[in-house]
Amino acid sequence: VNRSLDRLTRLSEPAPFEREALAVQYRRVRDLTRQLSAPLSAEDQGVQSMPDASPTKWHLAHTSWFFEALLLQRHQPGYRPHDEAYLYLYNSYYEALGPRHPRPQRGLLSRPSLAEVWHYREHIDAAVLRWLAEASDAQLAAAAPVFTLGLHHEQQHQELLLTDIKHAFSLNPLAPVYVPRPTYRHRDHEASAPPGWQRCSGGIVQIGHADTGFAFDNESPRHAVLLAPYQLATRPASCADYLAFMQDGAYQQPQWWLSDGWALRQAEHWDAPAYWRNPAPLGSAAYADPGAWQVYTLHGLQLLDLYEPVCHLSGYEAAAYAAWAGARLPTEFEWEAAAASVDPATQRYDPLAPHPQPLDHAAAAASGAGLQQLYGEVWEWTASAYAPYPGFKPWPGPAAEYNGKFMVNQLVLRGGSCATPPDHLRASYRNFFPPAARWQFSGVRLARDAT
Amino acid sequence: VNRSLDRLTRLSEPAPFEREALAVQYRRVRDLTRQLSAPLSAEDQGVQSMPDASPTKWHLAHTSWFFEALLLQRHQPGYRPHDEAYLYLYNSYYEALGPRHPRPQRGLLSRPSLAEVWHYREHIDAAVLRWLAEASDAQLAAAAPVFTLGLHHEQQHQELLLTDIKHAFSLNPLAPVYVPRPTYRHRDHEASAPPGWQRCSGGIVQIGHADTGFAFDNESPRHAVLLAPYQLATRPASCADYLAFMQDGAYQQPQWWLSDGWALRQAEHWDAPAYWRNPAPLGSAAYADPGAWQVYTLHGLQLLDLYEPVCHLSGYEAAAYAAWAGARLPTEFEWEAAAASVDPATQRYDPLAPHPQPLDHAAAAASGAGLQQLYGEVWEWTASAYAPYPGFKPWPGPAAEYNGKFMVNQLVLRGGSCATPPDHLRASYRNFFPPAARWQFSGVRLARDAT
Amino acid sequence: VNRSLDRLTRLSEPAPFEREALAVQYRRVRDLTRQLSAPLSAEDQGVQSMPDASPTKWHLAHTSWFFEALLLQRHQPGYRPHDEAYLYLYNSYYEALGPRHPRPQRGLLSRPSLAEVWHYREHIDAAVLRWLAEASDAQLAAAAPVFTLGLHHEQQHQELLLTDIKHAFSLNPLAPVYVPRPTYRHRDHEASAPPGWQRCSGGIVQIGHADTGFAFDNESPRHAVLLAPYQLATRPASCADYLAFMQDGAYQQPQWWLSDGWALRQAEHWDAPAYWRNPAPLGSAAYADPGAWQVYTLHGLQLLDLYEPVCHLSGYEAAAYAAWAGARLPTEFEWEAAAASVDPATQRYDPLAPHPQPLDHAAAAASGAGLQQLYGEVWEWTASAYAPYPGFKPWPGPAAEYNGKFMVNQLVLRGGSCATPPDHLRASYRNFFPPAARWQFSGVRLARDAT
Amino acid sequence: VNRSLDRLTRLSEPAPFEREALAVQYRRVRDLTRQLSAPLSAEDQGVQSMPDASPTKWHLAHTSWFFEALLLQRHQPGYRPHDEAYLYLYNSYYEALGPRHPRPQRGLLSRPSLAEVWHYREHIDAAVLRWLAEASDAQLAAAAPVFTLGLHHEQQHQELLLTDIKHAFSLNPLAPVYVPRPTYRHRDHEASAPPGWQRCSGGIVQIGHADTGFAFDNESPRHAVLLAPYQLATRPASCADYLAFMQDGAYQQPQWWLSDGWALRQAEHWDAPAYWRNPAPLGSAAYADPGAWQVYTLHGLQLLDLYEPVCHLSGYEAAAYAAWAGARLPTEFEWEAAAASVDPATQRYDPLAPHPQPLDHAAAAASGAGLQQLYGEVWEWTASAYAPYPGFKPWPGPAAEYNGKFMVNQLVLRGGSCATPPDHLRASYRNFFPPAARWQFSGVRLARDAT
Repeated sequence: VNRSLDRLTRLSEPAPFEREALAVQYRRVRDLTRQLSAPLSAEDQGVQSMPDASPTKWHLAHTSWFFEALLLQRHQPGYRPHDEAYLYLYNSYYEALGPRHPRPQRGLLSRPSLAEVWHYREHIDAAVLRWLAEASDAQLAAAAPVFTLGLHHEQQHQELLLTDIKHAFSLNPLAPVYVPRPTYRHRDHEASAPPGWQRCSGGIVQIGHADTGFAFDNESPRHAVLLAPYQLATRPASCADYLAFMQDGAYQQPQWWLSDGWALRQAEHWDAPAYWRNPAPLGSAAYADPGAWQVYTLHGLQLLDLYEPVCHLSGYEAAAYAAWAGARLPTEFEWEAAAASVDPATQRYDPLAPHPQPLDHAAAAASGAGLQQLYGEVWEWTASAYAPYPGFKPWPGPAAEYNGKFMVNQLVLRGGSCATPPDHLRASYRNFFPPAARWQFSGVRLARDAT
Repeated sequence: VNRSLDRLTRLSEPAPFEREALAVQYRRVRDLTRQLSAPLSAEDQGVQSMPDASPTKWHLAHTSWFFEALLLQRHQPGYRPHDEAYLYLYNSYYEALGPRHPRPQRGLLSRPSLAEVWHYREHIDAAVLRWLAEASDAQLAAAAPVFTLGLHHEQQHQELLLTDIKHAFSLNPLAPVYVPRPTYRHRDHEASAPPGWQRCSGGIVQIGHADTGFAFDNESPRHAVLLAPYQLATRPASCADYLAFMQDGAYQQPQWWLSDGWALRQAEHWDAPAYWRNPAPLGSAAYADPGAWQVYTLHGLQLLDLYEPVCHLSGYEAAAYAAWAGARLPTEFEWEAAAASVDPATQRYDPLAPHPQPLDHAAAAASGAGLQQLYGEVWEWTASAYAPYPGFKPWPGPAAEYNGKFMVNQLVLRGGSCATPPDHLRASYRNFFPPAARWQFSGVRLARDAT
Repeated sequence: VNRSLDRLTRLSEPAPFEREALAVQYRRVRDLTRQLSAPLSAEDQGVQSMPDASPTKWHLAHTSWFFEALLLQRHQPGYRPHDEAYLYLYNSYYEALGPRHPRPQRGLLSRPSLAEVWHYREHIDAAVLRWLAEASDAQLAAAAPVFTLGLHHEQQHQELLLTDIKHAFSLNPLAPVYVPRPTYRHRDHEASAPPGWQRCSGGIVQIGHADTGFAFDNESPRHAVLLAPYQLATRPASCADYLAFMQDGAYQQPQWWLSDGWALRQAEHWDAPAYWRNPAPLGSAAYADPGAWQVYTLHGLQLLDLYEPVCHLSGYEAAAYAAWAGARLPTEFEWEAAAASVDPATQRYDPLAPHPQPLDHAAAAASGAGLQQLYGEVWEWTASAYAPYPGFKPWPGPAAEYNGKFMVNQLVLRGGSCATPPDHLRASYRNFFPPAARWQFSGVRLARDAT
Repeated sequence: VNRSLDRLTRLSEPAPFEREALAVQYRRVRDLTRQLSAPLSAEDQGVQSMPDASPTKWHLAHTSWFFEALLLQRHQPGYRPHDEAYLYLYNSYYEALGPRHPRPQRGLLSRPSLAEVWHYREHIDAAVLRWLAEASDAQLAAAAPVFTLGLHHEQQHQELLLTDIKHAFSLNPLAPVYVPRPTYRHRDHEASAPPGWQRCSGGIVQIGHADTGFAFDNESPRHAVLLAPYQLATRPASCADYLAFMQDGAYQQPQWWLSDGWALRQAEHWDAPAYWRNPAPLGSAAYADPGAWQVYTLHGLQLLDLYEPVCHLSGYEAAAYAAWAGARLPTEFEWEAAAASVDPATQRYDPLAPHPQPLDHAAAAASGAGLQQLYGEVWEWTASAYAPYPGFKPWPGPAAEYNGKFMVNQLVLRGGSCATPPDHLRASYRNFFPPAARWQFSGVRLARDAT
């Protein structure tokens, strides 16, 4: 399978036997989307809680539209759209593919119904699999990159489906439970030790995707970057770590904050990470009391678990925390250079229980330590603005709009969260959000210059 | 039944045999709400398209909350709420009844589910009917006013349910059909004659609710008003009438408009009534062509029918149209004095086909004319600001907030629309909306001073 | 002089000897504007603190533009504008007279300089006085109405000049003094008695301008209105009266407030009249302490004087105060019927010391009481929406836009304030502002139904 | 003089003879501010046209406040502020120095008057010069860095004074002339040749301030960066170059634009650089006609000069132009590495005639070419987000807020404009603005990868 995925950049012809591998992969990815939406009612799946978030139903339809508009319409001769209106309704932001339904109004689309959207998905599935079986080798080779892109695109929306419904549910006074909390989690572990520091020597390092397996265009070209020696915290900041920052009054002290961040904190009255709840006001005794905090999660309201990685921070909060801690955010290059040797396959992933997990100290100690929880817990804000790599070229065709046009006003996040499918991640992966964003599973790992 | 309804203001004790009459009435009103929501899926029923409009599901729940919070909790000893959270979720604007869910976020409430809301309705229905059967005569007498108020309140929401889903559907590019267009409507009637003028002598007239049957507090006290002689158009302006205003360029001519109206027309780029659609720009030949216009209705997109009353006008458009026509809007007193002798029971009403109907000229001619289409077609904007009548007293208790606190920044509309239940209307009825509102079934009937 | 003023509505030819009387009046009005602007530097005169307020310099220019655009350009054959650009810069809202500089950007016009604006004024003065001397009798008769309108228009701007610079200065942390406080004011008078009630019999009363002297078009036609018996407070509410409302917690009690008013109070955090200052928060002891309050005035910051009429209330606060006091706002008809017999000429007016004055109790007692402080203290909010009188016709020509197009979304205020030129007032005068406005000298006089 | 400037970072003790050099420099910088404000009236100097821009008078006061708050209050024992209120009024954004007047309300400060502000400046000048004469060597050494910072701070405001009054004047329909256009400029030069490309070898380059002379903290530490070979255009894009982009329809073609830039272009209806004016709409023949364009400048409205560097571009327009031209923006490192060998002292500077100048082709040819117009014409947008250099440490004390807290959501611009004092510039200088900003003298120089 890996070899066929390689085609996305290499564009060589897949061998005949790879068709079945692609079909298996297609079915697996599409089925996970189905599983993720299964706990949600049709009513749940229609809600849009802010312009940045989309209804579950829209994710279901848009990921099918992607295969229709970029694969079937372009690579399947004679293909006729399932419904012309869907080309308008489910285009996200592709200017080259025509006008589209206004993003803030996705939640108004009670029609098409969820059943119709599932009918659409089934139609697309049948068409894609038929195409996969019937395309000539040349056709397959030409379209393999966009086929594979469609799968990775759907994986991105699998994560967004979760972050978006979490945001919507968080605004519901009933604090709905997406799935019950698994029983294997427990809070009776020993106290957390402060994170250690992993020394990294810097120098000239290779950054970006090496030519094996799929990668987005924004991870290329691989290129050399010169780094000074630096240190990374061995684990992301925990809720206990972050609570110390809060207890110290940092939400009232402008000196730790970027100017834009302080202005936003004031305007939005932020005094804790998103989804943390405490009726007591900032500065009160109960504000400083870990036991007084609850956190809204996809398992409903939970007591604050001090040993989990802190999550749902904005980039501004991550930077303020780092400044308060006498450290800084890592650059994306420092992160990647340090993470390159860690295998993302170790990522914990329970698609129906997305929640950052406390560090298993015993296991960490046994493993000889090093960098822990790099993947599969929280996206880690970096100090790096999202920008093109030297020599960056967007993909040809409509996929040119996939990444490049967003390379301004955003910060890169690295790692991957408990909501990210494990085979979606790699050391070179560049996630990106504006520094004000808090609805992703986003946390912080400290860095500092090597002494 | 009428006699028991009288109790709302008279507060005397209902006779025992009236219990059954009240129960019949309760079941009838509640059942109509069910019928109105029946064509809508659970997905449809969750959509909120603007802060002024509410999801169908919310209407279903709120009308039940009204009986729970104002009747059962106050008049049924030992009553325990169906769900404490619902008291918060489904309070609309009653400050005296505690905090409430923010109005613009009603569309985020995918939970409680529609099924749970129906369970709530059934619970309330059972409790209300049990109370009706078991209350002492004194208890019944004390609570009859709020019981009856709950029924009229629900009728108001029956109309809002329709206007709100129409607004939501109008923003859906698929232009959904709420119910198919009935077959009895036809467009091949003879050309519309201009409306005639009905002379009214004015003088000292009695305005407000006479003491028979239910009325809202804002219709009282009945009091004398002195009117100069005036004339009213025999029918509301038709689409043909209004199109002449448009063809004359009135949407580009500030001289017809109130200053606030002109500013809004410019900001919102209004160039036709709400829900009218024509891809051609203002000033083009197609803009002036009746055949180029479509209108979004609850039957989906329809060709413009010139003979229907024009509908979905803002108060600003109504006033501009009147100025252009060399006339003016009637005051609410002029309207009521003229309408007092017309029986609202003649109102056309098909709850599942709400649409203003063309005037039946033959019938109008046969009837000897007079004022036509006063009820059951469109709410008619008046020139009167919504204000308390001399000696106005809000109802006691929480119902004090029902009407009085809204008596500013709104205009009174009179008549009643194709979406208003017929037994909900009367000559003294005062509907009110800000002059910018266009999503109600609102039209215009001209007035002028008698020469 | 009075007779020549009559021409505005009667349009008869002025006799030759009246030319001089008109010129005297013109010079007097124009000179008062000069006096009012004299305490202000060129820098002061350029400031615009909100879109609703205009810079002093703009008032100086606009009142000259009015004579140029409505009088000289239309009634002086061969007149050529002083500067074509000024026709654009200093048009306020007359759509019929072409486009205009955006209202919110008046404060950006550092050019034309104040000196150039004075040059403009002098140019207009010379041209108007020359026209007055040289026009034929027929020309004079034709233009006399707009000439007189220009004078009354300028008087309106004389008041606005004061309210607007007061608003601007109030936002300056230095709390600038427009003019020092006159020495004749003193605070050591006896305690204020509660206002009495003046009974008014109601019945059919004549409302509107009787045909003597100037009046705006919105005061006509005079017409009959039927009133129930009512009572008016003998004086406007004092700061002591209003402080009792505040001390009772009324800024935290929604039951007194119109819904729109409560929403605004919450959004704007109102907890006292505009310009009142107290660092202590609502609910604290110091909040209830009269001695802890300061008030920004055109004499700078002053201690709160409990015996002055309360001022700078919004219509919402006026209505809430009335509700709390168990009373209501008067209608504009009630106010006018009661005030018709009171001579506005008794108005106190010191153009350079605009400030509401405490009631002189001794004088009031000696006078046999009746309605006190009707004119020349504060504009009194009424319950009446600003609407056309029956048979209202706007003036012909561009002056049609003077009043009529604003007849929506506003409330009528009656009386006249300490900033209103005394000969500008009369019982039929209708001032109007949106209920949210607080920067005018606006207060409240209670009314109630006669028992 | 250079040696004393070095103290800012080196903090060694200045020799006694340097006091006079510092005083000379102080007087020279302060006097230039005076010259720049001289053409403006007191009225002009009070205008604030948007929150990002400040009134001239505020710049005059704030630059004096800087010396008072950071130098005199901290380094002059016993110093008492000129006026306590000014510490509040003229603090810009220093949280550590207490609260401050709201930025959007700077234009409301008609008081203190311009004369008072000049009195303040004179007071500060006398106090600073006295301190300079009387401070002990140790005191002088301790305060020299902030003294020098104050001078460079004032130079930054000298440029802002010009860009801010230009913005204000641009909104005045009279298109005021700040100073007349100098006569030495002429348009009759030969046609512009396309810019050439300067090859740069890249490799490991040293970036940041080398330890000679003053630099801001954000230019340090000097550090190594690894660059791939690249090319820079020999001159910034001219108006002719940019007009070709416009003529090609690029303002209607989303494919060239960053997503945020396209959204802003749509919302703001941008169709040309700021200050360009053409009544003809986008797409018309006159839109494409160079002769139909006028440009608002500090010399008033001027015909478009095709040979000047294009100016007042947002970063979005700069990036779109580069994409359309098949090139890209340079990184700030590429720019600095290439510019390091060019002497900024060649910058043209006429403080009272700030306007980008056409390239002197003959001189450029004679000089053997290379990079032209690097300094003193337009700030050149780079692709680099404004971020801390590795090992960055903000200055100690209140100056810590000078640069570091703004390191997010902005792009770096390099070079320096016709409004920048020449001795203020150097190759390592990092200017920064959000990509939406257009009111600076900002242009674009293309870059591309070396083939």
